[in-house]
Amino acid sequence: MNRDAAAELAQRFLNGDLPLDALRAAFAGDQVADLADATVDLDRQRRCGYPEVIYAPGKPVDSLLRIVSELIVRDQDVLVTRLEPVQAQALVASFPDGTWKQQARTFRRMVGSSTQTAGRVAVITAGTSDLPVADEACETARWMRVEVVEISDVGVAGPHRLPRRLPEFVDADAIVVVAGMEGALPSVVGGFVDCPVIAVPTSVGYGANFGGVAALLSMLNSCAANVAVVNIDAGFKAGYLAGMIARKARTTD
Amino acid sequence: MNRDAAAELAQRFLNGDLPLDALRAAFAGDQVADLADATVDLDRQRRCGYPEVIYAPGKPVDSLLRIVSELIVRDQDVLVTRLEPVQAQALVASFPDGTWKQQARTFRRMVGSSTQTAGRVAVITAGTSDLPVADEACETARWMRVEVVEISDVGVAGPHRLPRRLPEFVDADAIVVVAGMEGALPSVVGGFVDCPVIAVPTSVGYGANFGGVAALLSMLNSCAANVAVVNIDAGFKAGYLAGMIARKARTTD
Amino acid sequence: MNRDAAAELAQRFLNGDLPLDALRAAFAGDQVADLADATVDLDRQRRCGYPEVIYAPGKPVDSLLRIVSELIVRDQDVLVTRLEPVQAQALVASFPDGTWKQQARTFRRMVGSSTQTAGRVAVITAGTSDLPVADEACETARWMRVEVVEISDVGVAGPHRLPRRLPEFVDADAIVVVAGMEGALPSVVGGFVDCPVIAVPTSVGYGANFGGVAALLSMLNSCAANVAVVNIDAGFKAGYLAGMIARKARTTD
Amino acid sequence: MNRDAAAELAQRFLNGDLPLDALRAAFAGDQVADLADATVDLDRQRRCGYPEVIYAPGKPVDSLLRIVSELIVRDQDVLVTRLEPVQAQALVASFPDGTWKQQARTFRRMVGSSTQTAGRVAVITAGTSDLPVADEACETARWMRVEVVEISDVGVAGPHRLPRRLPEFVDADAIVVVAGMEGALPSVVGGFVDCPVIAVPTSVGYGANFGGVAALLSMLNSCAANVAVVNIDAGFKAGYLAGMIARKARTTD
Amino acid sequence: MNRDAAAELAQRFLNGDLPLDALRAAFAGDQVADLADATVDLDRQRRCGYPEVIYAPGKPVDSLLRIVSELIVRDQDVLVTRLEPVQAQALVASFPDGTWKQQARTFRRMVGSSTQTAGRVAVITAGTSDLPVADEACETARWMRVEVVEISDVGVAGPHRLPRRLPEFVDADAIVVVAGMEGALPSVVGGFVDCPVIAVPTSVGYGANFGGVAALLSMLNSCAANVAVVNIDAGFKAGYLAGMIARKARTTD
Amino acid sequence: MNRDAAAELAQRFLNGDLPLDALRAAFAGDQVADLADATVDLDRQRRCGYPEVIYAPGKPVDSLLRIVSELIVRDQDVLVTRLEPVQAQALVASFPDGTWKQQARTFRRMVGSSTQTAGRVAVITAGTSDLPVADEACETARWMRVEVVEISDVGVAGPHRLPRRLPEFVDADAIVVVAGMEGALPSVVGGFVDCPVIAVPTSVGYGANFGGVAALLSMLNSCAANVAVVNIDAGFKAGYLAGMIARKARTTD
Amino acid sequence: MNRDAAAELAQRFLNGDLPLDALRAAFAGDQVADLADATVDLDRQRRCGYPEVIYAPGKPVDSLLRIVSELIVRDQDVLVTRLEPVQAQALVASFPDGTWKQQARTFRRMVGSSTQTAGRVAVITAGTSDLPVADEACETARWMRVEVVEISDVGVAGPHRLPRRLPEFVDADAIVVVAGMEGALPSVVGGFVDCPVIAVPTSVGYGANFGGVAALLSMLNSCAANVAVVNIDAGFKAGYLAGMIARKARTTD
Amino acid sequence: MNRDAAAELAQRFLNGDLPLDALRAAFAGDQVADLADATVDLDRQRRCGYPEVIYAPGKPVDSLLRIVSELIVRDQDVLVTRLEPVQAQALVASFPDGTWKQQARTFRRMVGSSTQTAGRVAVITAGTSDLPVADEACETARWMRVEVVEISDVGVAGPHRLPRRLPEFVDADAIVVVAGMEGALPSVVGGFVDCPVIAVPTSVGYGANFGGVAALLSMLNSCAANVAVVNIDAGFKAGYLAGMIARKARTTD
Repeated sequence: MNRDAAAELAQRFLNGDLPLDALRAAFAGDQVADLADATVDLDRQRRCGYPEVIYAPGKPVDSLLRIVSELIVRDQDVLVTRLEPVQAQALVASFPDGTWKQQARTFRRMVGSSTQTAGRVAVITAGTSDLPVADEACETARWMRVEVVEISDVGVAGPHRLPRRLPEFVDADAIVVVAGMEGALPSVVGGFVDCPVIAVPTSVGYGANFGGVAALLSMLNSCAANVAVVNIDAGFKAGYLAGMIARKARTTD
Repeated sequence: MNRDAAAELAQRFLNGDLPLDALRAAFAGDQVADLADATVDLDRQRRCGYPEVIYAPGKPVDSLLRIVSELIVRDQDVLVTRLEPVQAQALVASFPDGTWKQQARTFRRMVGSSTQTAGRVAVITAGTSDLPVADEACETARWMRVEVVEISDVGVAGPHRLPRRLPEFVDADAIVVVAGMEGALPSVVGGFVDCPVIAVPTSVGYGANFGGVAALLSMLNSCAANVAVVNIDAGFKAGYLAGMIARKARTTD
Repeated sequence: MNRDAAAELAQRFLNGDLPLDALRAAFAGDQVADLADATVDLDRQRRCGYPEVIYAPGKPVDSLLRIVSELIVRDQDVLVTRLEPVQAQALVASFPDGTWKQQARTFRRMVGSSTQTAGRVAVITAGTSDLPVADEACETARWMRVEVVEISDVGVAGPHRLPRRLPEFVDADAIVVVAGMEGALPSVVGGFVDCPVIAVPTSVGYGANFGGVAALLSMLNSCAANVAVVNIDAGFKAGYLAGMIARKARTTD
Repeated sequence: MNRDAAAELAQRFLNGDLPLDALRAAFAGDQVADLADATVDLDRQRRCGYPEVIYAPGKPVDSLLRIVSELIVRDQDVLVTRLEPVQAQALVASFPDGTWKQQARTFRRMVGSSTQTAGRVAVITAGTSDLPVADEACETARWMRVEVVEISDVGVAGPHRLPRRLPEFVDADAIVVVAGMEGALPSVVGGFVDCPVIAVPTSVGYGANFGGVAALLSMLNSCAANVAVVNIDAGFKAGYLAGMIARKARTTD
Repeated sequence: MNRDAAAELAQRFLNGDLPLDALRAAFAGDQVADLADATVDLDRQRRCGYPEVIYAPGKPVDSLLRIVSELIVRDQDVLVTRLEPVQAQALVASFPDGTWKQQARTFRRMVGSSTQTAGRVAVITAGTSDLPVADEACETARWMRVEVVEISDVGVAGPHRLPRRLPEFVDADAIVVVAGMEGALPSVVGGFVDCPVIAVPTSVGYGANFGGVAALLSMLNSCAANVAVVNIDAGFKAGYLAGMIARKARTTD
Repeated sequence: MNRDAAAELAQRFLNGDLPLDALRAAFAGDQVADLADATVDLDRQRRCGYPEVIYAPGKPVDSLLRIVSELIVRDQDVLVTRLEPVQAQALVASFPDGTWKQQARTFRRMVGSSTQTAGRVAVITAGTSDLPVADEACETARWMRVEVVEISDVGVAGPHRLPRRLPEFVDADAIVVVAGMEGALPSVVGGFVDCPVIAVPTSVGYGANFGGVAALLSMLNSCAANVAVVNIDAGFKAGYLAGMIARKARTTD
Repeated sequence: MNRDAAAELAQRFLNGDLPLDALRAAFAGDQVADLADATVDLDRQRRCGYPEVIYAPGKPVDSLLRIVSELIVRDQDVLVTRLEPVQAQALVASFPDGTWKQQARTFRRMVGSSTQTAGRVAVITAGTSDLPVADEACETARWMRVEVVEISDVGVAGPHRLPRRLPEFVDADAIVVVAGMEGALPSVVGGFVDCPVIAVPTSVGYGANFGGVAALLSMLNSCAANVAVVNIDAGFKAGYLAGMIARKARTTD
Repeated sequence: MNRDAAAELAQRFLNGDLPLDALRAAFAGDQVADLADATVDLDRQRRCGYPEVIYAPGKPVDSLLRIVSELIVRDQDVLVTRLEPVQAQALVASFPDGTWKQQARTFRRMVGSSTQTAGRVAVITAGTSDLPVADEACETARWMRVEVVEISDVGVAGPHRLPRRLPEFVDADAIVVVAGMEGALPSVVGGFVDCPVIAVPTSVGYGANFGGVAALLSMLNSCAANVAVVNIDAGFKAGYLAGMIARKARTTD
């Protein structure tokens, strides 16, 4: 709602044409698109810096296409996460200029060229099984127009593998570390750098791993002060936070 | 280790005066002060951007004074956390230019004037019982020379309390949200802003709160994409992360 | 057992025709229909205000049909929950005047017109994935002849979505709030209204959601005083409680 | 905010004397008293039907007195919960017309006569150890001006104890059932009545009771459809919900 | 209620002097003594074979004395469990012919000579720390007039200790096995005998013992078919079950 | 090993024909049949009163047939539990005089007539979904030549259903109670009888049932003194314990 | 890196041809083979005594073949664990001189004759269902060129089965004990021997076994001092530790 | 029991002077000292390589003195763990040639000179708060006459601290690693060495540490193959296992 619209409402209220409750409601929210089966938050780019991201599970294909179209016609960058192959194939068919990453389970479509990047994020994984989660983080950061570097398979069992990659991540604005099993890698990375580390526990492992809980607890209890944690397998959220930090670090207000 | 010291070692090795293993060890680590009962990490400011923070529990008073002295003589800003009153009183007696915040359980001593700040952090609490944790976060951010604004007692049970404080936190570089009970506040704050939210679950509550686990799970499962989590009652870590993000956002590289 | 039947038993006992134990048993219970494979509680409408509801899982189709018939011949409104499609199809074939809601997994058949309603219940969901549970609640309330309004997809991540729907639920007699992930919505709704809120955690989510436990704990720890909780995914129970409250609120004793 | 105040704000905005953001904020919230160390929600009676209840833990005595005074001068009924004896004694000294119930840990002060009640609540306990929690529920309901009947020590181990008290609770508008150990009593009570049952698990018990978790799970899984659950030991919340239901049942809109 | 009392009630009902509801209630329960602060179940000996046992925690001394007196005047054997020393001392002072076992925390007073025993129970402990729980089981069995043999400190770490005691327990009618830590002893005992083994996990241990949960799970998963489990530290319940089995085994119906 | 065999060994040892270690081993164990892939415990009937029961999961069909044959040739009653249909069909084909109960997943073959029974066990279920577990208990008790009575679908939600069946179970020697959901039935049954109650939690239920843990905890915390617990869904173990108690109660030593 | 390579690097650094950071990195790590999709640790045999073991899950067949080839060309013994059949068949086809154990899910290929063994490990299982985990331990120990003896089906339910096998394991250098259900066997074995016992909990069991957690807790709380624990079903790790201990015990330094 | 004693027993049995059961019992166990309140296992040194270790908690002082005396008169090395100060002072007063380590809570008394050591164990801690647990491990290893080196405060937060101590532990026969918080250190140490690592989680930490469970899970899930785990805070058990391995590694059979 811009100033003019607000002024019109205020005037109608003073004229007695608009009850007080209606005025309250109008000020409370007006930036929503009510589709048949979803309420798309169109105000989010203004409010939060980025458009709404679409979480695919359970959404019928036609509903998904409708929501994506709605964003595209409003010139917003599109990111869809946790896609089933059948959903992804429908998106690619309808919007061939978008990018489907199968392992990451994401679909991304940028407005205009996506080359102008600001900030730099490193995404580091402990083992090769952590790659799908890491890829989701990477695609999310790219959607935010942030530069991404991936460093894989440098877990603590082979302790000489990480230091030799140090030059690649020591200057990042934010680092995502993805690890399962005992989840020790974020603490080790955190001790080497002066930027925030977003730790993502993965459900990789077996036995008393409890679907990622062992790694989650490990990361929450990290003795490194610069380690924050997101949910198990939450590659998207980690990429989003890292991208947001990198953008802030490189953007002149 | 600077270049000259490295060159001398290399020369001695080539001369056969230094075995290969000793050379390796020398390159591996040389930035440590071995006190009687602790190994102080003096390299941390260079490596991580800030000096080592001292975690007080279990440390005898004389040991604590020795470590703090060690940092002061090297011109480093001092932060001690989780102080018992008897420890704090000894610090204040020895270093009267430092600041003890009783509720935060912190002792902070800055080198020179602490007025030049860079970046701005908001620390928001759900209820008054969350204040000690929030204060620890505030003191940590101040030690990092970041501007801090505190907003208290705006939990979701009175939903009109948060929006009226919006102007105070909407432009922060990072926000710390401290909440116990059901831990819903970070999600709500996250929906209003375009910066990272560091959520701190507190052990405030009773019944099936499980010492903060209910709030922790709530925050990990937050539907807001910009919410990362730290350990229960971990005010220090939240303040550290928020301060680090704020510094990055406002510092020209 | 009415007064006459009781008097006859008492007389037979006094005459010595009925042992004391038999008299005790007769007073203890006589309102049950012993079918081949179930014990239908026919007294429940008198005792609890509503007929017995049939929980479908594990019941063979013929057994299910028999139980439903038993209720119909006694002029009782029928509600079956958690139906498998094959069970539902058999019910629809046998009783075409009943209503099968596929997403809600319910079958409902009312005696006479179902238009006369008493009381009003709002059923609010956080996200579209919570709809099946919400639908079960709605169907249950309708079976209780209570008016229902559904409000969907107004979770806290888009905090401006709920207040604009306030007029629709602010005057309800009871509100069901269905939410997964961090389960924060019931607290927020609870702060806006002066009626009981029945919170239903759903198993929607991933990672450290633990099949709905995160939302369950969140709701149990709600800082809003008017929030009670039912089991995970227990749409039926929430609808039943809300309907019962609404009926009480609108019925003259 | 009444209509006149709203009109004045709208006019100032149209005149250009008030920025749009300030207008938004004014509409968002204006019913708050900012004390030194708390934000009292004065709008709650209008919004939720009852004034704010004061949770005592951690509040300094002078702060507590100040908040209670604030409510009294505004003619609101006062309820304070979870009082330490020292807090309670200060309240009694300052407000001798209030009532301190030591076992319930509550302080209650009513405006005018509290005799006119509406609705009726039964509070039933399984064992004598559950009494403190039950008393908190009773005091809460009384503060809501609802009639209360207490029935104690009728747990399932002596199964003939409950039915003989049936006439006392069968006509209640809502029932609070307080039980520890295996928490079976709410299910049994639920099978006898046609009103909502609010179950409160208590931390009474030992061994694998886990501080009330055994009873909590039992109640969540109750096979009785009219049983909702609140947090462990949450007597206040149970009394509040039951009182709210009773008021609705007996109040003509 | 005997036949005469029942007949009188039935006659009054037929005469119209007693409403139907009152008749129902009278038949439902009449074997209760309503003390000031407790409802003593006087019918239990007839119904369950033994008088009510008094659980001491939280009971004021005078209330405890009153309940014990009530049982004594009705010629019932008395057992009080989980006594605090102050409670126990008051019992001993008032009823000097009773027995207080300090380690077991029990008070027992028998009617007449307690020598005539029926059946035989063995109580076996893994370590000396399990003795208090075992003693509670022993005293319970003695109160049931069953012969008891105690075998201590024969845990599996010294595997040759148990077999040499075999002759003492191989012919018992029931065996109580009390063990903390890994709780392996019941499985081993179960493999040697042809009678039921009641396993009692104790909270003895440290680390990942979780207050007895490790032993509890171990016992529930016992590969021996004749092992049933009671709650952690529940010596009373184990002794009660074992005594009941022993009585049945040796009593001619 | 009988006396003669022992004497021969002792003589050989004295003659120097048998080393000390071999003598020790011989006394330690000699009652085992080493099949290709299992070690059958042939001594169990002597030691524990009943032959070894065969747990089917994971056993190849031919191995299963071999073990059953081994028992049959030694005139032992056979019980096999947790059978897959394919295993069961092979057993029926090879031993047509045995009984396969499909719902119970058991195979039972008795030596001679199985009519002479001793003792009586009642098996009570809360709901129809608990029947498979109850049937396993029944078959186990029958294999032990104990009389069995089944009482189904008498859970606490319809509280008048249990008392009317009282005459059928009040005189049992032991009672198995099978219940899922909140697991309240064993406590209620325990309050009516003077014999041991073996409670079996089942994994029936949903939401916060946690695969039977809710019922398990409920039963462990039962306020009835005569309730012991076995593992979740452990119908066999409950039947075994109840049968053992019943046998003891009715057998003259 | 040998002395010559180190000297060359040192000289280049002194000449100014190599920056300090590059020198540091070179010393940190140089023993890695960067394949397309994995980082093989070729230095492990020197550092840890054995080559890297390949964990198969999630590895594409061609990637697996490439890694195995890489090790073979460097004359290292190969061990692959947790193989899917399709992976195993490809390995057997390519390297027919290797050994695939289907139940153990391992592939092993030794360089030269594998007969010269050092040390001796016993692998003991409680039941036949524990065999796959035990086999993985055996294959691992064989790959380490350690002698292995397997003893199966000697769980505590038949307590006379273990002692008669004592001569086979009493002189082992290390013992692996594999057990599910209540996990009591390691404690019993630990009491008989003077060597370390590595306990492996298995996920065998049902009910409150929780996928091996019951056995895990039991083993962690073992009262035997010589029992260490590895993860649930972690046969490989147990075999590795036992083999390492056996090698140390029999190798002259 | 030596050969002569066995022969005498065998002869008495053949003569009919000794029943079969008595003979069995005599062979089963004869190496036990039955004190008033404990059963001391005097055979353990022969069977397990070391005398019984005394666990102090709950033992009265006089009982403790009696047990220690019993071992001393039999020329066995003494180790007492988990001492309360009052117990320790009594031991020191009675046996002044023993060593009480206050932080380790141990008392140790060696027979003759304790200088001849065999094998070498390293005990490494992550932080200074882990020292008490580490000290218990050290004292245990010393009691086993193994050489011990302690390396403290080298946790992963300062990643350059561990490698510089490498020469001190790289050649150990076994390593104990003690760590709380996220428990990452054992994995890192495990990657550097070719000997077994015994990991001890400590209850050091706060928040979601859960009394050491976070570290425990982390260690169980360690990606390093040579890491075994003992119970939380179980310094004794870790020292015992490491000492046993070191002894084996250095002892000629």
